[in-house]
Amino acid sequence: MVHRVVVQVSDLDKVDGALISCRNLLDDMPDAEVEVVFHQSAIEALRRGTPREGGVRDLMARGASIVACRNSMRARNMGEDELIAGVSIVKAGVGEIVRRQAEGWIYLKL
Amino acid sequence: MVHRVVVQVSDLDKVDGALISCRNLLDDMPDAEVEVVFHQSAIEALRRGTPREGGVRDLMARGASIVACRNSMRARNMGEDELIAGVSIVKAGVGEIVRRQAEGWIYLKL
Amino acid sequence: MVHRVVVQVSDLDKVDGALISCRNLLDDMPDAEVEVVFHQSAIEALRRGTPREGGVRDLMARGASIVACRNSMRARNMGEDELIAGVSIVKAGVGEIVRRQAEGWIYLKL
Repeated sequence: MVHRVVVQVSDLDKVDGALISCRNLLDDMPDAEVEVVFHQSAIEALRRGTPREGGVRDLMARGASIVACRNSMRARNMGEDELIAGVSIVKAGVGEIVRRQAEGWIYLKL
Repeated sequence: MVHRVVVQVSDLDKVDGALISCRNLLDDMPDAEVEVVFHQSAIEALRRGTPREGGVRDLMARGASIVACRNSMRARNMGEDELIAGVSIVKAGVGEIVRRQAEGWIYLKL
Repeated sequence: MVHRVVVQVSDLDKVDGALISCRNLLDDMPDAEVEVVFHQSAIEALRRGTPREGGVRDLMARGASIVACRNSMRARNMGEDELIAGVSIVKAGVGEIVRRQAEGWIYLKL
């Protein structure tokens, strides 16, 4: 059975631990479909050229989808062109997390 | 499909972000049935006359149910008459979150 | 209906509140099957002879299973013989949380 997992990352202070935990999840479940939603202060981790870009790009290289919350971007005056290449955008991170669960995805908050 | 979402708010330091995220959720899913459970230190946000009362009442005005954990109230010597009007009480916030999920509600931790 | 609940504890600063919430959950749902997974910095709470040992052992005495994440142990140079007796180990805490949910367990993040 292939697990589909929607991961929520809210807090910029927890991003480093969250990136490690996502790598551990992909090591443990190489076939899992993983989508990582960044919102609230954690959205800053998706800003191009900042220190977590390597960790975020590594997750993408391993097949994870990275999603940015537009509400959180707007609250921090982040433009789409400031995002790391390959990140997708949803209107509301919390709505995305709810919709994925409604589709049967497993939820993990980091 | 109408989504039913049980939201957990545990940490007083995260209440402001949680109130914003709940508003964003209701904007994104106007038909969703949303219940927000406050427990641990976040219970303080439900104290009448404190700064978050406006934000909490706004969620109620938009149809969300607001629930207080009696265990958390007792640990902080909060009486029922100190709660914002319209807030309901459950014995244990964590039990409420588990029961809602068992009933098919989607879980969101803020 | 017997609820099966997988509880995630990630943050050492939140362990004390998490132990209280787990006790409250067991008081509210005495028949629940509860597994508490410690990972990231919270793994330190499972170190034998540290202040939370009593609280952790109390949960085990009440029937909860306590699980340590090997990735988190390795990152902190914790050996198996440093764990509180009775704690079990999984390769990845996040994988355990996902697998339990896939088996129908309810998820609670503390």
